[in-house]
Amino acid sequence: MSEEIKDENKEIVENEQVEESLTEEALEDIVEEEINEVEEAQQLASEWENKFLRVSAEMQNVQRRGNEERLQLVKYRSQDLAKKILPSLDNLERALAVEGLTEDVKKGLEMVQESLKAALKEEGVEEVAAEGVPFDPNFHMAVQTVEADEEHPTDTVAQVFQKGYKLHDRILRPAMVVVAQ
Amino acid sequence: MSEEIKDENKEIVENEQVEESLTEEALEDIVEEEINEVEEAQQLASEWENKFLRVSAEMQNVQRRGNEERLQLVKYRSQDLAKKILPSLDNLERALAVEGLTEDVKKGLEMVQESLKAALKEEGVEEVAAEGVPFDPNFHMAVQTVEADEEHPTDTVAQVFQKGYKLHDRILRPAMVVVAQ
Repeated sequence: MSEEIKDENKEIVENEQVEESLTEEALEDIVEEEINEVEEAQQLASEWENKFLRVSAEMQNVQRRGNEERLQLVKYRSQDLAKKILPSLDNLERALAVEGLTEDVKKGLEMVQESLKAALKEEGVEEVAAEGVPFDPNFHMAVQTVEADEEHPTDTVAQVFQKGYKLHDRILRPAMVVVAQ
Repeated sequence: MSEEIKDENKEIVENEQVEESLTEEALEDIVEEEINEVEEAQQLASEWENKFLRVSAEMQNVQRRGNEERLQLVKYRSQDLAKKILPSLDNLERALAVEGLTEDVKKGLEMVQESLKAALKEEGVEEVAAEGVPFDPNFHMAVQTVEADEEHPTDTVAQVFQKGYKLHDRILRPAMVVVAQ
């Protein structure tokens, strides 16, 4: 509509030959109309500019969040499978603890154990330090206590029942330990 | 600058009392100036609108691609660790094939094998069908051929040297097979 008004006014002003002369009042009205038009259009431009700036900022946020999320997904991608493999490692340790294994069997079991540990290590899985270190509830689960002595000072891990594992900085399962008190 | 021109024109038109009457020509000039202003502002509005529309469309693409990528990352997250665990499964199978294992040791090995396979299966890892199926270069690597016979028709897998595995639809490693020809 504003486009129409503008074109109309333009025509009126340009066709001076036809409508020989416009009255001053008519011209003043046209000027005012045009001034309103300018304000309206500038308002509109500023609205679209703001919308553009908002959506641009939003897109940067979306991209930043997406990148962070992707990095996290990649970093911890092995978490689920690694967690599920830990019982196999436990079983292997138990099997290796059986008395009277032949050399062949022992070697075979150790090979499996080594290859599993190597695979996990490559993906960032590590054993949690336990035996002899200060008790840390972030990495250790106390299942029993013993009296502290010279060898096992108060609040250190005296014995490990089951190894704990972490993936980078994230705990997969805590070590089950006996704490000296 | 355009803002200044507009305000100036407005003042000129409104202060009729002061400059008692503007000539028609001066008024016509003002009208033309204002018309140009309108065009300029409308042009600007339409430019910002287009920029807004472009960046909005781009954002939708970024979000869609991000979601697709995330789904892929999650679906195949276990790929690297699973691949690295396959040699452990091979070692277990070899250990289980050793003659004269005691019942205890055999049971222990089978437990480890079962728990590993279960962990892999939960993450979507499956053995590739091989023995007796038609040879498929997508899943099988032919390392030897034998004469086809009644039991092993042409172009089927006659024997499996090493098991193959896939993660969902993606091959982790092909089965090493003997093909009947």
